[in-house]
Amino acid sequence: MSKRNLFYAQSGGVTPVINASAAGVIQAAKRYPDQIGKVLAGQNGILGALQENLIDTSKENARTIEGLINTPGGAFGSCRYKLKSLSENRAEYERLIAVFKAHNIGYFLYNGGGDSADTCLKVSQISASMDFPITAIHIPKTIDNDLPLTDNCPGFGSVAKYVAISTREAALDVASMCATSTKVFILEVMGRHAGWIAGASALAASERGDAPHIILFPEIAFDKDRFLQSVTACVERYGYCVIVASEGTSTADGKLLSDQGERDVFGHAQLGGLAPLLAGLIKEQLGYKYHWAVADYLQRAARHIASQTDVDQALALGKAAVELAVGGANAVMPAIKRHSNKPYRWSIYPVPLSRVANREKKMPRRFISKDGFGITPQAREYFAPLIAGEAYPPYQRGLPHYIRLKQVLVKKRCPPWEGE
Amino acid sequence: MSKRNLFYAQSGGVTPVINASAAGVIQAAKRYPDQIGKVLAGQNGILGALQENLIDTSKENARTIEGLINTPGGAFGSCRYKLKSLSENRAEYERLIAVFKAHNIGYFLYNGGGDSADTCLKVSQISASMDFPITAIHIPKTIDNDLPLTDNCPGFGSVAKYVAISTREAALDVASMCATSTKVFILEVMGRHAGWIAGASALAASERGDAPHIILFPEIAFDKDRFLQSVTACVERYGYCVIVASEGTSTADGKLLSDQGERDVFGHAQLGGLAPLLAGLIKEQLGYKYHWAVADYLQRAARHIASQTDVDQALALGKAAVELAVGGANAVMPAIKRHSNKPYRWSIYPVPLSRVANREKKMPRRFISKDGFGITPQAREYFAPLIAGEAYPPYQRGLPHYIRLKQVLVKKRCPPWEGE
Repeated sequence: MSKRNLFYAQSGGVTPVINASAAGVIQAAKRYPDQIGKVLAGQNGILGALQENLIDTSKENARTIEGLINTPGGAFGSCRYKLKSLSENRAEYERLIAVFKAHNIGYFLYNGGGDSADTCLKVSQISASMDFPITAIHIPKTIDNDLPLTDNCPGFGSVAKYVAISTREAALDVASMCATSTKVFILEVMGRHAGWIAGASALAASERGDAPHIILFPEIAFDKDRFLQSVTACVERYGYCVIVASEGTSTADGKLLSDQGERDVFGHAQLGGLAPLLAGLIKEQLGYKYHWAVADYLQRAARHIASQTDVDQALALGKAAVELAVGGANAVMPAIKRHSNKPYRWSIYPVPLSRVANREKKMPRRFISKDGFGITPQAREYFAPLIAGEAYPPYQRGLPHYIRLKQVLVKKRCPPWEGE
Repeated sequence: MSKRNLFYAQSGGVTPVINASAAGVIQAAKRYPDQIGKVLAGQNGILGALQENLIDTSKENARTIEGLINTPGGAFGSCRYKLKSLSENRAEYERLIAVFKAHNIGYFLYNGGGDSADTCLKVSQISASMDFPITAIHIPKTIDNDLPLTDNCPGFGSVAKYVAISTREAALDVASMCATSTKVFILEVMGRHAGWIAGASALAASERGDAPHIILFPEIAFDKDRFLQSVTACVERYGYCVIVASEGTSTADGKLLSDQGERDVFGHAQLGGLAPLLAGLIKEQLGYKYHWAVADYLQRAARHIASQTDVDQALALGKAAVELAVGGANAVMPAIKRHSNKPYRWSIYPVPLSRVANREKKMPRRFISKDGFGITPQAREYFAPLIAGEAYPPYQRGLPHYIRLKQVLVKKRCPPWEGE
């Protein structure tokens, strides 16, 4: 096979370590000069391909590429843009192939979650049918940890670590003050469909009675009375109560607790989020003084306290994707297999995209304690190695030194894109 | 003077480094065996003295005391309990003195903010008038950085560092996504009366156009139209806008923006906080997709990324308080004097409590940029050394190892307290 260029793009919500996967791709590609030409990255994800905004990564110096390993966010720009199905918008796929053809792109490496695994599979299929075969490899990334087959997803371990540390720290604060002040603290974390992030907060506890005392999972229907009873029991027993609530916490009818149709005085849907809603409930029903925090982007950007396991895996998966591509694989995703917990051993193996796309892996019931408010020892064993090690970034003047790319675009060769 | 015991207590909201001051006190006291007997710490602050719950710190081993330097929260328990004035509740002060007398306490070291400086001064005054003179020293602590005379307050530097790092990280996330998704990100930070914390977020920016783009200070009256114009201009220019809002942001009439009397559907005062309120305003008036975070306790408990300057100063002030006490000073607070910025040089000097108590130091207008949405180069020079250095705690199994005290109480010698 003659030498062809490689296209890499980031998709969906970013993570503290998605750029480490990018670094893995760019560094590994250099080791195959006979097969791979340039690595061209999509500016703002797949939009970069559609709009022919292709970043020439060879214009970035090697130190900058190495610095990607320590830099959160999506350095090339990501996007929330889901390609429609082939029947709905074939033109979009044809445009992709046209751009790839114009730039001699033979490898499509797409770094994202379930949606992008689906896109990746479709690109592989349509390119074959259009007689311009492209090797399509999906690199897993999602803080939600909800991709099937892979033991865990890059991005998750660092968010889990951040949430566990924040829970432990905030709990010390509440415990200090509870004699005369705040009795209940609520931390809202991400995870709209799966409770992996909320569950990992349980690692904060090392002794019986330690925070978090109550975890709310999307997998467990919210029962107001049981919840309030549990808060009361906890405050009476320990003097305070720390709650970690997944944003996806829902009632038995499947409706998000944070979206129960309340309107504010202007008639707008409440924008308040789950934590203030729970705080209001506790204040009204139990009268406890409360505080609440919503970590939001802080949790998924917190590269300053990334997990070493996570960084290692993100980097390794980027490299593995290139190796799979040059090795002749297609329409696969490098996934993580866990061999043992102590010591933690893992390896990478390819799984077919047809088995990854559009499937969500929730917290299994056996990982959630019987009462639905905590995790089991089995879950603890699963989570523990994923947060191991502190991959500190370098600092300058008291702040992490995160790199910026020059983002030099290659010259356009196609007509402007007519899409949205 | 014969050997007397030392009483130490933590007061008000805790910080990532207040325990470092405690360690400084306990470690320094050991160096004066002829003057100081035991260090007895109030369990839950001044309440520990009133209730005669005195923690015998000599029962903790030296490694635990050293570990206090790395542990956030108030390890002895803090409290929000303001002693009334002498005329209103003389009995409370008399009770304090009775307990101090019963335990041969000759030194009163009180670690807190403005209120506790006032308490400290009163204890010194009344003890003298009751013919049981007590050396009263106040050790400054407040993340709000609003104590007068001292150049800065222990606790602030670490919160400033956390907020600046979080702003830089979240901004990278927003910048990655803004082409197709979130355009505005709002981070709400602490500081009810003074904008020091919000102001320090500006350190996140290193180039023109970097986040934070808009800072809201309690010192600057909120002007809705100017704010919205500024958000629009920013999104049009940079593609996104990062806002750091101090919880104390108020309108020109001095009312908190987050407490404008709105009621939810149940008729309760809105508990939502400032960030969701600003998000709602932006969504309604400008239509931008937004995200928001409220750091709350996470920011003031984040010992995992404490500033080395801050830890050093907290520890040094605890030691200095003991040295002042044994040196014969009374009714003073060790304060920080800044000698130079580059290199950063500082020293400790005593200031009389009468000049500290009940006075707040706001951000001076010369530290806030002309448009009211940013900081000046002068402010940047002030903030920079305070966030310098990363005082990482030790880790075990992926989490910071924070110590727990045994909290062995000394035997009571007084009748039970009849107060609240």
